[in-house]
Amino acid sequence: MPKLWSDTVDEHRREVRDAVLDATAQLVHEQGLRAVTMSEIAAKAGIGRATLYKYFADVETILFAWHERQIVAHLAELARVRDQAEEPLLAVLEAYAHITGGSRQHHHGGELASILHRDHRLAHAHRQLHQMVCELITVEVRAGRVRRDVAPEELAQYCLHALGAAGELSSKAAVSRLVSVTMAGLRGVS
Amino acid sequence: MPKLWSDTVDEHRREVRDAVLDATAQLVHEQGLRAVTMSEIAAKAGIGRATLYKYFADVETILFAWHERQIVAHLAELARVRDQAEEPLLAVLEAYAHITGGSRQHHHGGELASILHRDHRLAHAHRQLHQMVCELITVEVRAGRVRRDVAPEELAQYCLHALGAAGELSSKAAVSRLVSVTMAGLRGVS
Repeated sequence: MPKLWSDTVDEHRREVRDAVLDATAQLVHEQGLRAVTMSEIAAKAGIGRATLYKYFADVETILFAWHERQIVAHLAELARVRDQAEEPLLAVLEAYAHITGGSRQHHHGGELASILHRDHRLAHAHRQLHQMVCELITVEVRAGRVRRDVAPEELAQYCLHALGAAGELSSKAAVSRLVSVTMAGLRGVS
Repeated sequence: MPKLWSDTVDEHRREVRDAVLDATAQLVHEQGLRAVTMSEIAAKAGIGRATLYKYFADVETILFAWHERQIVAHLAELARVRDQAEEPLLAVLEAYAHITGGSRQHHHGGELASILHRDHRLAHAHRQLHQMVCELITVEVRAGRVRRDVAPEELAQYCLHALGAAGELSSKAAVSRLVSVTMAGLRGVS
């Protein structure tokens, strides 16, 4: 049964890959970016160093793969939130703010961020996110709950930038206040 | 008269330095970061290559010096705006948004930005800016024109992040709309 066999191989490869990404993220979080080596990653992931090199050429490649996994997971999470919430715009902005607040801390004080921000996938994901927020804003404008004197595209940019402040906030309560201030800007002054 | 002589030397050095910074900024703007060499900078600034090396060790050092000059000039400009405006908070936020809108374009699509963002002076300038906006917000809170349910520190972070969206806007009118949306967030919903 070659089909089943290849499924098993695929699944095994995915598991190893995930273990490597998890191990790397944890090591970078603990030791900082420069201190992490391929040997340490292999040891922490529970595989041999030679095996690790069959999967990834270097630490940077692993970080980009980890980043891609994070981005895909975050976009999926935001889509799920949107589809389940009673107030999708508010819920998506809140979820995005909390993701931003959490991920800044994981990015190890700018060092990792400055590498990952060169990732072209980030720009692509950002466009998808902008598109999602834009659509939600358009719905709210039609319902009369968001100002109509500024285009949804511009309002979406405003939102996503404003919620970037979550990266500097230390509590979940502060992040929620940020969302509420940002929403007030969307509604405008009556 | 050694005093006068040294004044003249200082002034001459400042002029050469400024000419080098101007030449570098223009070359980077025209050709992109990687294409710019010390020889080109010397030629454009109208000095010899050997003289340039007496002032700066390499292109990156010049860029940081240029960046510092920009930051100092921007903070001085914002302080001037604050001291002359009838509505200082609005005026400072508007001026900051226009600076942000303009400087993103000069930063040559992220390449220069990713180098300059490592500059520790940027973090320091950002703290000064945050402090300035915070004080202006506090005045507005006391006057009842800005919401009091969120601390001025958090509101200042919100403002500065939200206005960062100006970097992606193409017209001055769009930047002004962004400022007005951001101000609505500060006022809150009554």
